[in-house]
Amino acid sequence: MILTRLALALLCVQLAACAVQTKPSTSRLPAVPTPADARAVSPAFANSTASLLIDEVWKRPGLSPRDRSLVTVAVLIARGQTVEMDYHFDLVLKNGVKPVELSEAINHLAFYTGWGNATATVLIAQEVFARHHISADQLAPVSPVLLQIDKAVEADRVVKVDEAVGTTSPGLVHYTTVALFNDLWLRPGLAPRDRSLITVSALVANGQVGQVGFHLNRAMDNGLTQPQASEMLTQLAFYAGWPNVFSAVPVFKSVFASRAG
Amino acid sequence: MILTRLALALLCVQLAACAVQTKPSTSRLPAVPTPADARAVSPAFANSTASLLIDEVWKRPGLSPRDRSLVTVAVLIARGQTVEMDYHFDLVLKNGVKPVELSEAINHLAFYTGWGNATATVLIAQEVFARHHISADQLAPVSPVLLQIDKAVEADRVVKVDEAVGTTSPGLVHYTTVALFNDLWLRPGLAPRDRSLITVSALVANGQVGQVGFHLNRAMDNGLTQPQASEMLTQLAFYAGWPNVFSAVPVFKSVFASRAG
Amino acid sequence: MILTRLALALLCVQLAACAVQTKPSTSRLPAVPTPADARAVSPAFANSTASLLIDEVWKRPGLSPRDRSLVTVAVLIARGQTVEMDYHFDLVLKNGVKPVELSEAINHLAFYTGWGNATATVLIAQEVFARHHISADQLAPVSPVLLQIDKAVEADRVVKVDEAVGTTSPGLVHYTTVALFNDLWLRPGLAPRDRSLITVSALVANGQVGQVGFHLNRAMDNGLTQPQASEMLTQLAFYAGWPNVFSAVPVFKSVFASRAG
Repeated sequence: MILTRLALALLCVQLAACAVQTKPSTSRLPAVPTPADARAVSPAFANSTASLLIDEVWKRPGLSPRDRSLVTVAVLIARGQTVEMDYHFDLVLKNGVKPVELSEAINHLAFYTGWGNATATVLIAQEVFARHHISADQLAPVSPVLLQIDKAVEADRVVKVDEAVGTTSPGLVHYTTVALFNDLWLRPGLAPRDRSLITVSALVANGQVGQVGFHLNRAMDNGLTQPQASEMLTQLAFYAGWPNVFSAVPVFKSVFASRAG
Repeated sequence: MILTRLALALLCVQLAACAVQTKPSTSRLPAVPTPADARAVSPAFANSTASLLIDEVWKRPGLSPRDRSLVTVAVLIARGQTVEMDYHFDLVLKNGVKPVELSEAINHLAFYTGWGNATATVLIAQEVFARHHISADQLAPVSPVLLQIDKAVEADRVVKVDEAVGTTSPGLVHYTTVALFNDLWLRPGLAPRDRSLITVSALVANGQVGQVGFHLNRAMDNGLTQPQASEMLTQLAFYAGWPNVFSAVPVFKSVFASRAG
Repeated sequence: MILTRLALALLCVQLAACAVQTKPSTSRLPAVPTPADARAVSPAFANSTASLLIDEVWKRPGLSPRDRSLVTVAVLIARGQTVEMDYHFDLVLKNGVKPVELSEAINHLAFYTGWGNATATVLIAQEVFARHHISADQLAPVSPVLLQIDKAVEADRVVKVDEAVGTTSPGLVHYTTVALFNDLWLRPGLAPRDRSLITVSALVANGQVGQVGFHLNRAMDNGLTQPQASEMLTQLAFYAGWPNVFSAVPVFKSVFASRAG
């Protein structure tokens, strides 16, 4: 009898352990397909992923793997594509993006893609951060010392937003200044050039062509080169789909032309 | 032996209970991140959510919490943002939206955002409704007595849709009349002004600028005031992202101007 | 004691079996709501789904159930609507789409809607394929013998893409030729007409109006009739939402007019 009780106790312990293993706190996160899963659905797609995309496009010289990862992560967040996030949050860190930069990118894209888009990253990013043993002091802080604002550029922006929005939505004018241009863009954890990179990527990913001109110009003012912007479109074609990129091309073309003139 | 059998039987009962607890019928719904989860990914984002968004923007006087909740829920449904739905379906009810109104809103947005968008709300709304002890007679009924149609407005709409669509898609013309304007919009469970509020929100949330003019005019005909429409843009900036709102501003501006003239 | 051990062993077996049943490898896929679930949230929506959509729209004569299913599946993939995928991947096969065609459609839409959109289908399609006992030789192969290219059409396309894109993004020009028009569109597993059908559907579903003209013309060159294209808009109204269809109507109208002239 004693032995039986012991066996039962052991079984209970095993069951508890088992429960922990098979139902981790993350079990409700989207399941991540493996290459074998992709092959079981479309060998053609699995093959393109491996040989065309990973082995070729990601290795093209025009844009660094770090930039490609930032572009890709921005697309996924902009479109709420949670299934791919675990893989690409991991890859963006491996490609040299610092934890604080990814943490800032998520905060940045809350404003540029919608609050729910940032919220949808939280549990997945949390798991990836845990796997990388990232500590709290490596994350986007609440109140960092801000970068210096360029007063001339900002004065010009204020005039233009007042003209474009003004009394149509005073609240929008207010938060565009206090939350975005006098705060978000000045946070030092992610360089302005990288903020521009993910902003433009998010715009293209959601077909928001009308806002690309302002932000591509700003990106290039912030240091994005024309060859890099040009190669962004190649990366975006695969992750945001061809049509979104073809719709953005005329704006890229015209920004390139206006800056060359 | 008898005692052992008893122990085994007890264990079985415990296991069954355990299974019920750890694998509820809802365990496959998207996991909902807590503020602590958000802090573990981006303290900056968690702080903006709490102090900028919840404590400030939601309390601005220009738009009631009830309207802000309707706007927000419309954004989430329009974009299929399931992670945020549990929180905001709960909040919309707490902010005074009646169960029948939320139930009608889901049905309304099936037509205005796509069938799959409504389907994606079902299991989450079901769980929220259960928590609020909402009964079947509080939901959008199959065949209510419809509101009276405004015959002059409807005659005008029919002419315009015939001109715009006509033979390009007779099926579209047909269902626009019988399913939308002679039925959906006349269902009494959600006021026309609120149907317009969520329709315009959904359009802005998905960048469907071309359809905003008609529906914003209709919203204002249905009782949405200009200050409310203006403040909608502030709420939408946070939930649909700045770029979508900046793209919609010119249409809001021109509708405001045309109605002021 | 021996009996007790046997009982324990049996219990272990049962537990293992139970684990397999209650936590299958697919338990992290999105839960699929039943009609009863929909009724518990909105009887109006559940009723429209059953009597208006399934019993009426799907049975309209202008477009076959097979085509309606392809249109619908394209919408779901284009928008990442995973909740509806299990139902419609199953239905598309029942409506006569061959496994290789669905497998090709997923690969095709990776390019036309974004890589992550195809990835998001993988685990769900895998489960549906398993239920239908579909074997590896029924899937989109890596390197099939390609269809013959129409050299005149292709030469014209190359000129136009060079004019439109050219130096703005040489990478985009390159992959548009080698990955899309000299490969993807020539894969025999899905007819060019059906590739066009899902491409146009995906464009309308995501509001990518600017690209509809080229692809609708191509669809009609590939054999899509005007009545079919017209009725596509009816199907799309329900699955992509009314606003996306109203935005696409002027392009359809103008393509129909230009081909009638």
